Amino acid sequence: MTTTASHATPAYDALAGTWLRLYRLNHLQSMASWDQAANMPPKGNEARGQALAEIAMLTHGMRTDPRLQADLARAKAEPLTPEQSANLREIERDWFRTNALPAELVERRALATSRCEYAWRTQRKNNDWAGFAENLKGVLEVAREEARHLSAQSGLGLYDALINRYEPGMRCETLDRVFGEVKQWLPGLIARITRKQAAEPTLAPVGPFDRAAQRRLCEQVMQLLKFDFDGGRLDVSSHPFSGGVPEDVRLTTRFRDDEFVQSLMGTIHETGHGRYEQNLPRELLGQPVAEARSMGIHESQSLSFEMQIGCHPGFVAQIAPLVRAAFGDQPALATANLQRLLTRVQPSLIRVDADEVTYGAHVILRYEIERGLVEGLYDVDDIPALWDEKMMALLGVDTRGNFRDGPMQDVHWPEGLFGYFACYSLGAMYAAQWFATMRRTMPSLDDDIAAGRLESVFDWLRTNIWLQGSRWTTDELSVRASGETLNPAHFRAHLERRYLG
Amino acid sequence: MTTTASHATPAYDALAGTWLRLYRLNHLQSMASWDQAANMPPKGNEARGQALAEIAMLTHGMRTDPRLQADLARAKAEPLTPEQSANLREIERDWFRTNALPAELVERRALATSRCEYAWRTQRKNNDWAGFAENLKGVLEVAREEARHLSAQSGLGLYDALINRYEPGMRCETLDRVFGEVKQWLPGLIARITRKQAAEPTLAPVGPFDRAAQRRLCEQVMQLLKFDFDGGRLDVSSHPFSGGVPEDVRLTTRFRDDEFVQSLMGTIHETGHGRYEQNLPRELLGQPVAEARSMGIHESQSLSFEMQIGCHPGFVAQIAPLVRAAFGDQPALATANLQRLLTRVQPSLIRVDADEVTYGAHVILRYEIERGLVEGLYDVDDIPALWDEKMMALLGVDTRGNFRDGPMQDVHWPEGLFGYFACYSLGAMYAAQWFATMRRTMPSLDDDIAAGRLESVFDWLRTNIWLQGSRWTTDELSVRASGETLNPAHFRAHLERRYLG
Repeated sequence: MTTTASHATPAYDALAGTWLRLYRLNHLQSMASWDQAANMPPKGNEARGQALAEIAMLTHGMRTDPRLQADLARAKAEPLTPEQSANLREIERDWFRTNALPAELVERRALATSRCEYAWRTQRKNNDWAGFAENLKGVLEVAREEARHLSAQSGLGLYDALINRYEPGMRCETLDRVFGEVKQWLPGLIARITRKQAAEPTLAPVGPFDRAAQRRLCEQVMQLLKFDFDGGRLDVSSHPFSGGVPEDVRLTTRFRDDEFVQSLMGTIHETGHGRYEQNLPRELLGQPVAEARSMGIHESQSLSFEMQIGCHPGFVAQIAPLVRAAFGDQPALATANLQRLLTRVQPSLIRVDADEVTYGAHVILRYEIERGLVEGLYDVDDIPALWDEKMMALLGVDTRGNFRDGPMQDVHWPEGLFGYFACYSLGAMYAAQWFATMRRTMPSLDDDIAAGRLESVFDWLRTNIWLQGSRWTTDELSVRASGETLNPAHFRAHLERRYLG
Repeated sequence: MTTTASHATPAYDALAGTWLRLYRLNHLQSMASWDQAANMPPKGNEARGQALAEIAMLTHGMRTDPRLQADLARAKAEPLTPEQSANLREIERDWFRTNALPAELVERRALATSRCEYAWRTQRKNNDWAGFAENLKGVLEVAREEARHLSAQSGLGLYDALINRYEPGMRCETLDRVFGEVKQWLPGLIARITRKQAAEPTLAPVGPFDRAAQRRLCEQVMQLLKFDFDGGRLDVSSHPFSGGVPEDVRLTTRFRDDEFVQSLMGTIHETGHGRYEQNLPRELLGQPVAEARSMGIHESQSLSFEMQIGCHPGFVAQIAPLVRAAFGDQPALATANLQRLLTRVQPSLIRVDADEVTYGAHVILRYEIERGLVEGLYDVDDIPALWDEKMMALLGVDTRGNFRDGPMQDVHWPEGLFGYFACYSLGAMYAAQWFATMRRTMPSLDDDIAAGRLESVFDWLRTNIWLQGSRWTTDELSVRASGETLNPAHFRAHLERRYLG
């Protein structure tokens, strides 16, 4: 890994040196972005934007230095250790991401997406589909061009080339198989669960909920989940996220006076992202091989924390007394009612508010539509009809005329992030697969969780996921951890067990 | 100013472009440093240090690009506006600061000062002069070499070349005259004031003082002083400072349970720095000509706020009710007692804790010793005896054997910041000079302050100091603002008026 061990790998060493510098500069970008969301007063925004643009230009220049291509070719012929080879693979992936597209296309992409995203903020409020569609056509045109470029250079299919940016190695073929299976059983499962839950009335907690008490509660739960506060913080921002760097993880949440569940569960979710980052392989930090494997694997950690642990009846029983201590006792905060609240299933319009059962439907719908858009099967004007039809088929929800809570609800399309949505569901499926594996090898798992003994869960995740960084492809990682590649049967079993068991 | 107005100034435009980029990168450095002091969890420190070192190396590379020297020479022959000429002067000053010293000297300097500063943290606690002196000799040796280099290249005297880094244009000749005058009257003045105050017993406020209430009080007072919270923040750090950038000023303070005056007055002090930064000429931001004139002028703003306004009886009467509202009434918080507390004069060992009357003695002592050290008149081993002698002569304080609270009390010498101390006293003198000028042209000044009408003070500072940035030399700025260059008579008159009036 280091540049001192041998002098037989000069090209590799040069590349590793460049990426170490990029890692350090990225530290400053991450902190400035976190600060922008968590601290910055409004009048700082323009200067902050200029500063971030300046360093982005600078690191872009480093990543597009023409000498890198020759170094990459030479490094491949050098006598590398397996770890160095994995690092080189990840360096090349990062290099490709920056160098595959002509500069003028990158610029047109930035123009089209920033125009669309900016207008979308108002258009969404006004339910202005026609105005939005006009801009989205520009974004789609560029995205198709992008897909053609990436496809030509990588040999992947058009949409595969886009997915590959977020979930390396994932292919439409796999998604078709996996999502195809899910579509078979999901609508039926939703129907059975909602029928069952109709007989279990749930009380809504009555606010207001003191924000300082909410914050303390979140910190207590993060401590139960072993977030390392000596290497990270929890702060407030209007859009919660996990930022910072592995050495200094910055999680954010937001608080409302009338509601505490969203912020608590959101914090547990971000804590999963945060612990992954905090436990990446330390001795390799600074190199791409030490980074998180992919968006899907990252999401498998946040969903391991939020869904597998956070909504586990044993864990809910652990935190329920903390909740009552924070806000005072009331019937809705009884443990059984809290558990029902956290596992309430209800088909709805908005993806980010969806429960873990219906969530997949939102993703499958987007996957099918955006793949068709990228491949030229659909055009922007087809979206509303496709949306209405698929929402009705998958969730039984009528979305006609409601663009705001329909195809205009997410920032991903305005930002041109085609290929991203699948990662969310892949994360949920991988999380279920990790816990199925743990349950197989650790029969006391559920008792341990109920007793607050989470160390065995964390040890498994640390050993099998966190400390692996990007040493392996996602499929290799999955096989090493669970004995098989992605298998959605575990997700189905998890849902049936939790919701119909 | 801009690069578009004309094509007749290509060299100037190239320089302005480079310094604009440096300004933007400095934004990230400032924020990362502020965050390090105000937010960062301990485990983030190493990565933060590496990130800051990386960008420091990068901006150093930009400032030492060999092409700059030719551009500087060419730009001087270009048809520049007066503003552009001033900017070019400041660009050259910044360029000189980075390029005047050979890289190997800069490196030796960094090694010597970091070794000395690091060991000093423990040596000071242990009163270990012998250990400290050993390291300080290394720092002094490098500082002398530095002075010889800067002197040879600038044509200035050895110590003048060092002052010039912090207070451009200031010379030993002026300091000798000014400090010489002060030494004539200061010891007598201190004696008269302490005799007078002996007859005015002062009550000490009794704590504890709630930290949240202290914070609210500080924010209220900052609001009275028109700090723009849409363009800045107040946070907590263990060593209070004014950081951030003009567009986003980050002030810090610290709170103790048993004391509130230090934090309140410290906040008022930093607010002065902050308002200067917030009101630098906006249309020029990004160029050196838009930056604060010098350390001394910066300090003249913090001391205008802390001493001229903050300890003004009229202002104290304004904030006393806020203090009582924050902590509850008690005899020590009566307006007259608060005023006495804030103007208590007492010769003491520690510079940073000194009142405005005795403060100058601490600075003069350091100026005389460090100038002798740099010029080779004294060696490190001479410091204790010099210190004891001067403390006795100027303040009547016995410091024998107490190195911890004597020559080891400040971080400046371990860090090699020879030439810096004078700026503190220059700031106090300029502040007195600004207010003497205001009093001359605005006869209602003291009544205005007492009535909470501070706009006329702020207008004067904005027009004469803040909006001038670095357009003028310090002497020009002073003459334009007050009709004369630095005149310590105003400082003397201020002290006599306030303390014996």
